[in-house]
Amino acid sequence: MSIPDLSPLANAIRFLSIDAIVQAKEGHQGVPLGMAEIATALFTQHLKFNPADPTWPDRDRFVLSNGHGSMLLYSLLYLTGYERIPIDEIRRFRELGSRCEGHPEFDPASGIEVTTGPLGQGIANALGMAVAEAYLNARFGAELVDHYTYAFVGDGCLQEGVGQEMISLAGHLRLSKLILFWDDNRITDDGSTELSISEDVAERFRVAGWHVIEVDGHDIEAVSQAITAARWDTRPSMIACRTVIARGIERLQGLRGGHSGRLHPEDADAARRALDWPHPPFEVPAPVLGAWRDAGRRSQGDYDAWQQRFAALPPSQRAEFQRVLEGRLPAGWREVLAEYKRRALAAETLPSGITISAEINDMLSEVLPERMVACADLEAPMSHKRRLKAFSSDDRSGAYVHCGVREHVMGSLANGMAAHGGIIPLSLTYLAFSDYERPAMRMAALMGLPVKFVFSHDSIGLGKNGPTHQPVEILASLRAMPNMLVLRPADAVEAAECWEIALEHRSGPVTLVFARQALPLVRAAHAGDNLSRRGAYLLADAAGGPRAVTLIATGSEVILALQARALLQAEGIPTAVASMPSWELFDAQDAAYRASILPPGGARVAVEAALRFGWDRYLGERGGFVGMTGFGASGPADALYEKFGITPAAIAAEAKRCLSSQS
Amino acid sequence: MSIPDLSPLANAIRFLSIDAIVQAKEGHQGVPLGMAEIATALFTQHLKFNPADPTWPDRDRFVLSNGHGSMLLYSLLYLTGYERIPIDEIRRFRELGSRCEGHPEFDPASGIEVTTGPLGQGIANALGMAVAEAYLNARFGAELVDHYTYAFVGDGCLQEGVGQEMISLAGHLRLSKLILFWDDNRITDDGSTELSISEDVAERFRVAGWHVIEVDGHDIEAVSQAITAARWDTRPSMIACRTVIARGIERLQGLRGGHSGRLHPEDADAARRALDWPHPPFEVPAPVLGAWRDAGRRSQGDYDAWQQRFAALPPSQRAEFQRVLEGRLPAGWREVLAEYKRRALAAETLPSGITISAEINDMLSEVLPERMVACADLEAPMSHKRRLKAFSSDDRSGAYVHCGVREHVMGSLANGMAAHGGIIPLSLTYLAFSDYERPAMRMAALMGLPVKFVFSHDSIGLGKNGPTHQPVEILASLRAMPNMLVLRPADAVEAAECWEIALEHRSGPVTLVFARQALPLVRAAHAGDNLSRRGAYLLADAAGGPRAVTLIATGSEVILALQARALLQAEGIPTAVASMPSWELFDAQDAAYRASILPPGGARVAVEAALRFGWDRYLGERGGFVGMTGFGASGPADALYEKFGITPAAIAAEAKRCLSSQS
Repeated sequence: MSIPDLSPLANAIRFLSIDAIVQAKEGHQGVPLGMAEIATALFTQHLKFNPADPTWPDRDRFVLSNGHGSMLLYSLLYLTGYERIPIDEIRRFRELGSRCEGHPEFDPASGIEVTTGPLGQGIANALGMAVAEAYLNARFGAELVDHYTYAFVGDGCLQEGVGQEMISLAGHLRLSKLILFWDDNRITDDGSTELSISEDVAERFRVAGWHVIEVDGHDIEAVSQAITAARWDTRPSMIACRTVIARGIERLQGLRGGHSGRLHPEDADAARRALDWPHPPFEVPAPVLGAWRDAGRRSQGDYDAWQQRFAALPPSQRAEFQRVLEGRLPAGWREVLAEYKRRALAAETLPSGITISAEINDMLSEVLPERMVACADLEAPMSHKRRLKAFSSDDRSGAYVHCGVREHVMGSLANGMAAHGGIIPLSLTYLAFSDYERPAMRMAALMGLPVKFVFSHDSIGLGKNGPTHQPVEILASLRAMPNMLVLRPADAVEAAECWEIALEHRSGPVTLVFARQALPLVRAAHAGDNLSRRGAYLLADAAGGPRAVTLIATGSEVILALQARALLQAEGIPTAVASMPSWELFDAQDAAYRASILPPGGARVAVEAALRFGWDRYLGERGGFVGMTGFGASGPADALYEKFGITPAAIAAEAKRCLSSQS
Repeated sequence: MSIPDLSPLANAIRFLSIDAIVQAKEGHQGVPLGMAEIATALFTQHLKFNPADPTWPDRDRFVLSNGHGSMLLYSLLYLTGYERIPIDEIRRFRELGSRCEGHPEFDPASGIEVTTGPLGQGIANALGMAVAEAYLNARFGAELVDHYTYAFVGDGCLQEGVGQEMISLAGHLRLSKLILFWDDNRITDDGSTELSISEDVAERFRVAGWHVIEVDGHDIEAVSQAITAARWDTRPSMIACRTVIARGIERLQGLRGGHSGRLHPEDADAARRALDWPHPPFEVPAPVLGAWRDAGRRSQGDYDAWQQRFAALPPSQRAEFQRVLEGRLPAGWREVLAEYKRRALAAETLPSGITISAEINDMLSEVLPERMVACADLEAPMSHKRRLKAFSSDDRSGAYVHCGVREHVMGSLANGMAAHGGIIPLSLTYLAFSDYERPAMRMAALMGLPVKFVFSHDSIGLGKNGPTHQPVEILASLRAMPNMLVLRPADAVEAAECWEIALEHRSGPVTLVFARQALPLVRAAHAGDNLSRRGAYLLADAAGGPRAVTLIATGSEVILALQARALLQAEGIPTAVASMPSWELFDAQDAAYRASILPPGGARVAVEAALRFGWDRYLGERGGFVGMTGFGASGPADALYEKFGITPAAIAAEAKRCLSSQS
């Protein structure tokens, strides 16, 4: 089929989208109608993919960053023959239970590479995919990994800060296999883009080192030629596609209402007449569908050749590639952590919390070549660099990505790496700045991506830098996030345990928080078992009688709880201390175990250099709390603990107050 | 004093900074040492300010966006004669209780215009100040408002997404009185900027429509000339100052360690020798201090002339200017809200939650000309535009700022407007995207700025757009933030009450969340009183006997609680319903009032289409919860409420379960 004949294929996208949106009574027609030709050029002429094996590791990745245009993606998946997106799913667009959800939701088996909707995330994920591809290409060779990453993007994604960070970083890293298609329709939800932007977007990309091509986005041949040029260039490419939003709906095209103004059956009828598309709703004429299905089989040769190369690999290399792609951990990784525990127990002094994490990671480097570390330019977290080389424009074998002071794209690119597969991504900054990457963390939680978000400077314990840098509410805000596993270890032994948990955890992201200050050992006993795995455990039991009170603490405050216990025991009050590195893991234990840690009706005091918010669930009617009640302050850490009353004496006093309350 | 003689003034900054940092044993010398000449040029030749009246409304605003360089600011404030920053405060830099905190903390009376530290915030605040200035200039005339906004900025601020959003939006709005000084030292915490950025930063500004001047940042005269040129230009200006980080400390200057590597007394000694500064630590020689104090009095003429113009104003105009600058509300504003309540009570049908807020704001427009609305390009929140004109490059009298899809800079510019004074800023988007502006919201809370953060689409009730757009954890994450007042009204009456509370609230930011879906009236009774002010109140008391159970609900779920009450009452279970628009306000009530709403030991069920996280504090031992347990889904709102079990029947069942539990 020659290029000029492809317009019926584009119209198939157009009418499936119109029909689904009319039926759903809502949706965003702007993108699928405006980008139908662009998608046709890409999917019929260039994209390397196999609908019969959607997760083929060397497929090109396709990201619809302007995810509100979801019907574009669903149309393509149906037309090219993805089994999990039959026409009936499209008929049920936006209905409960349909795979054709309002926005694309992560489902690689259906051809949906990432969840998109919050603007800017998709292109930043695409950056992560391109980094993952380059790293794996360097590691396994082009026979196994050699693919492009394509993303469609609208004005909104490019206005977002995370989008701007992505432009800057991708240009810096010169990721030549990353190709964006900008839907330059000059319309946003608000009206003309002129309301909010004056800059030359293409020029902004050029400044960042991108290769930019400007084309008519409705000229399939021109778009296809642009893709060819983009694939040859040694820079990342941005194809600026001049388009008409909602093209085909005369009443709305080129106008603000084109974005998501309500479509009526009359609009569909008018479009059918205008575009000479006499077919009933949801019906694609056989020759057109056939041409699309042929497009879906276009990469069969590449696919077969790849499978042959893969089968011909030495078994150990094949197994290693399979292992990292499936996210299985290598032999020996647990032993590394056990060895670290032994060293820590034998050490005379121990470094800061974050350096403990760095030392653990340093030791893991040799057994976990699939680990990549992204860091937002801060000294303490940078300790995780150690022996790692930088991933750079001239060395793709480096596992450390200097993200610059761009936390948001750092988090989103970590998501993209995880979605790509073959990489265990770490994202590193101070805990106070987790807010900057929080939208990415939320997406990791929603998609269930195994990203490790690692933070230092986890409390007022960081001291003199003051309240801007001191998290007080942030632990609560992260514990509140569904499917986010939060770990706050108390010492080197728990840190090794938490890293073990974090690496095992595959069903979602993990947040690991570490102190800036030194964490003395509190866990000499039972260091051979991973007690952190139960979320909370008795670190010191009550002595001299039945337990009167339980102190529950996390992280750097566990040692204060132990000191408070000594005060209380000296007064004859049998006191237990529970260390609680993770709420989520504790909540997952059975009732009997939970009651063994927190006996019903007992007096309890929680201790954490953070706000009480959320702690009440563990406190019961006779519970108390020692921690922060507002933002921190600038001063030496010791003075701050004193000022805010987080001391052994204050904990002991609170315990006695709780004991004197009625049971 | 002629320009060539100013280098001792710069060195005074340099040595105060060195001495303070040596004494504190930590700090960031890179900025004060690298920008000393730039600051000298600005503060001695151009800045309009009066240390004797730090909050003079028409002062130029100065923002140190690279806030880690705080000693630069403190040095300037001491040298120019701000009473609240004497030399003793500088000696106590970074000690607990000193006004010279690790990072500058908002304190206009001391000359600290905003808190800075989290990178990018300061320049985005400066954008807000420049918008406020332009709007107030249009409203009150140049006799009262005509000043510049200057900001110092490092590479980190410009790498941040929020910084990039700021560049784009400021260029678009052509804010000619906004002047940035870029500390182009080619070093970040991580090492060379080449590790993470390749683009030509100056060119990136030019693309966005900025006037860019490149100068040697250590040449005071060149910097001063650049400022003059910048002041004349009709575009915002960026003065790219090529600098040597930590200039003066030979061991560190121009190197990575210059940023914040530890300074020792020997470094200070060596610098004294190298720069011929024989004076003891913390001592500024009299002629130099005298010259600085003269600089602090340089604007006296401008100040006196302004005071004369102000005194000569017609009393009503003077009073109005004073009113808005002091943040006092005008006569008649409460009546507008009362009138809205009356109309709502008489209406046959009521619109969506967010439209109710828009209608209220529409009515407020006439009495509150100081209200400015910033919106991130989304249709529902845009309803708050109504009769407002756009604030644009050619019309500064518009009160509606089209921010584009740039939530983060929107929040930060709202903070800047509030910090400037004379404006009541609203920031508008969907609640799910509050995460994008969360770092700005945190800064508003930390500074205690009266910004109104308004959100629509507050739950799964938004329906088919799916889980990316459905907040479930976000209410908890905002309630967890210190000094953030969160309001979630149940209907039009509560919406008017919550807007009354929000406008009265001056000690910090407010988050107002509204449903996308319609909110039928639930509060016909006592509509004359603002019951929301107590945080929670009894909307319906138990009937037919002593109260057996209390249902507590917020926002769109209040009506479900009322329906559940009907079911329970029909079964003979006396059931009360408490509407709880605000946790923070309820927590501030006395114990007796709280007990009247939530009787101790009573059975209680909280109902909210969000996670339980945080609710336990109100539930007690016999409490239950009906709400979400994870992320949402894509489907019609009704189907989602059914799927997730947030229904009157489910609430009634949960109430009975709680009743059957032991008390």
